[in-house]
Amino acid sequence: MANFELMRLLTITHSTKIVLLVLDGLGGLPMEPEGPTELEAARTPNMDRLATEGALGRTIPVAQGIAPGSGPAHLALFGYDPVEYEIGRGVLEAFGIGVKMGERDVAARGNFCTVDLEGKIIDRRAGRIPTEKAVPLVQKLATITLPDVELEVRPVREYRFLVVLRGEGMEADIEETDPLREGVAPFPAVALSAGSQRAAELFNLWIDEARRLLANEYPANAVTLRGFSKDPHLPKYEDVYKLRAACVAVYPMYKGLASLVGMHVRKLDGELPANEFAAVRDCWADYDFFFVHVKPTDSRGEDGDFDGKVKVIESVDAALPELMGLRPDVLIITGDHSTPARLRTHSWHPVPALLWAPATVMPDSSTTFGERECARGGLGTFAAADLMPLALAHAGRLSRYGA
Amino acid sequence: MANFELMRLLTITHSTKIVLLVLDGLGGLPMEPEGPTELEAARTPNMDRLATEGALGRTIPVAQGIAPGSGPAHLALFGYDPVEYEIGRGVLEAFGIGVKMGERDVAARGNFCTVDLEGKIIDRRAGRIPTEKAVPLVQKLATITLPDVELEVRPVREYRFLVVLRGEGMEADIEETDPLREGVAPFPAVALSAGSQRAAELFNLWIDEARRLLANEYPANAVTLRGFSKDPHLPKYEDVYKLRAACVAVYPMYKGLASLVGMHVRKLDGELPANEFAAVRDCWADYDFFFVHVKPTDSRGEDGDFDGKVKVIESVDAALPELMGLRPDVLIITGDHSTPARLRTHSWHPVPALLWAPATVMPDSSTTFGERECARGGLGTFAAADLMPLALAHAGRLSRYGA
Repeated sequence: MANFELMRLLTITHSTKIVLLVLDGLGGLPMEPEGPTELEAARTPNMDRLATEGALGRTIPVAQGIAPGSGPAHLALFGYDPVEYEIGRGVLEAFGIGVKMGERDVAARGNFCTVDLEGKIIDRRAGRIPTEKAVPLVQKLATITLPDVELEVRPVREYRFLVVLRGEGMEADIEETDPLREGVAPFPAVALSAGSQRAAELFNLWIDEARRLLANEYPANAVTLRGFSKDPHLPKYEDVYKLRAACVAVYPMYKGLASLVGMHVRKLDGELPANEFAAVRDCWADYDFFFVHVKPTDSRGEDGDFDGKVKVIESVDAALPELMGLRPDVLIITGDHSTPARLRTHSWHPVPALLWAPATVMPDSSTTFGERECARGGLGTFAAADLMPLALAHAGRLSRYGA
Repeated sequence: MANFELMRLLTITHSTKIVLLVLDGLGGLPMEPEGPTELEAARTPNMDRLATEGALGRTIPVAQGIAPGSGPAHLALFGYDPVEYEIGRGVLEAFGIGVKMGERDVAARGNFCTVDLEGKIIDRRAGRIPTEKAVPLVQKLATITLPDVELEVRPVREYRFLVVLRGEGMEADIEETDPLREGVAPFPAVALSAGSQRAAELFNLWIDEARRLLANEYPANAVTLRGFSKDPHLPKYEDVYKLRAACVAVYPMYKGLASLVGMHVRKLDGELPANEFAAVRDCWADYDFFFVHVKPTDSRGEDGDFDGKVKVIESVDAALPELMGLRPDVLIITGDHSTPARLRTHSWHPVPALLWAPATVMPDSSTTFGERECARGGLGTFAAADLMPLALAHAGRLSRYGA
């Protein structure tokens, strides 16, 4: 694990530039025993050149055998111990859409869902209604008022929204109301500590009111709330690493994670890898560190769409020359976790990692970027939280430890 | 290291079956520089097929350079930090032969030994007297009484026996009486803490009485006591992993280790690998997890008998089809530590490990099971305590960590 005491002590400022390019859920598996993985199957001439010039390895996001969610997986990539630092989904969404969280505020991530006449869930995502259908419904929910607290309700993306409760004396140890399966009614918000009693009661009042307002809005005729949480006050990149850091990401959650560690979230003109690299170019002079997040590798993996995931990887590769043209000093290409199309979900398999740093890297014998090349790679298999110290070292941004 | 908090949080029940097949002291060394190790020399067509379909790696039982005893080595395989959880040999033997240990009880493992007229040890194992000769001697020792405590004395196997002291106010920090060499007299039991004073005094009274009773029982004319200890209250498999676990082992100590973590020890009909696999078959429906322990790999290694160790490995391989016929979801074949015939003792060398899990494994390029194939294997080299989380993950028994 990155040791923040060491990082604070040893980091120095420098003119070097570091790019952390995260292909979400990059790691994969062969669909049949003799076959290639998604990354092995993809035609990636640019990444292969970087693998030839650089070195490969594999990261363990949290611990052997643990399939992480995006939150802990990204915290590890950012150098934070993902078991020590926990972030609730509510806070993540709030930071992701730029909603300020005060000391006292409790956030929850909401989902529209569909319930039948008995109130049992028949679709946990309300037919994945698009954002433009969700917005007016969220506006309806924003009219709800509760005694002695302020409320902020905001659309996120598709069927997702955010609720923030602002008031005194509220903790956020509250059980999620999403039963995670269909055929049962949403659970009430149950407080798991005395200090969370008040927030749980208020959220339950809010849910009742929401049900009343949505009664005729089939398929979005009910809601579930998850990830009740407060600002975790994470150490910031500038403080820990002396890095001015930019985030280029399409999805709110990853913007949220980046904001939580003090990165500046950049505006984007389009959602393709080429658009993301263009956004990096536009602010190249202003930052030392660039976190670029590519989501669809994970989405195609969760869909079980092997070929689709291959295509996303190839589209990133095709756009890479634009990024390389900026002449970063250190480029890391990796995933936050594995999402093999074969398993249709996040998995615990070690994640392929490529380190390109022409001034300082020890090249290994790899000539392509793929899981099995990475397993043999010169970087070995190591904790994802060790990537940041490695990146800083290769960027000449860590001074010697001890005499 | 397995994080029990994480395991408790993330483990879910499932219908999958996991087999952990431990060939004690499996790891070896070549007898001459160019030669094969025991495992490399063995003809193992079945394991080679599993290596081809699965993935190889190496485990570090406790830490680099540490040659472990069977206790810590097995605890690590079971997912317990072997430095955090210590188990005395006395308690191990007690659990191994099914003797119940109460809160207050102190157990010690006894050895019959041979002393000369001056009381100096001339054979630490009393000529390795067979169990049937030891039993009447143990019955003699069982007649000893001491003030204010109960005593239980039980034969274990060959020259080994168990003494349990049941009474108030006894700790077990007591120096072993076995000098571990010949030519000196057994040491007295010396208390290493004030709380252990009483137990040490009682054990010394008991030893004097035993010497008197055994005076004419050459070669078993004296005793040594080791591993003074109390029940360490280990977390149990069912609690930590949600696994109903069975143990199939011949030697009491391994049954003891398994009982300590909550496994059910199964009856055996014969001591060969084939008999052990038959015992697994007989209870296949009743458990989720099967720990199968094969002892003679270690015994032949300690004898310096390279060919004998090869033959034991081959006998396990020959019996494997019976085990595979049960269709486990996850099979791990490994050792608890290395016992190279060349060194005639436990060693610190990383231990070969084979993971077979057709639904989820990333195959590597290995086609045989051997030390050097394992060093190149896709699983890498990792802490033995990480095997359990990996096994659980491949069995679909771990839910995602974090949002």
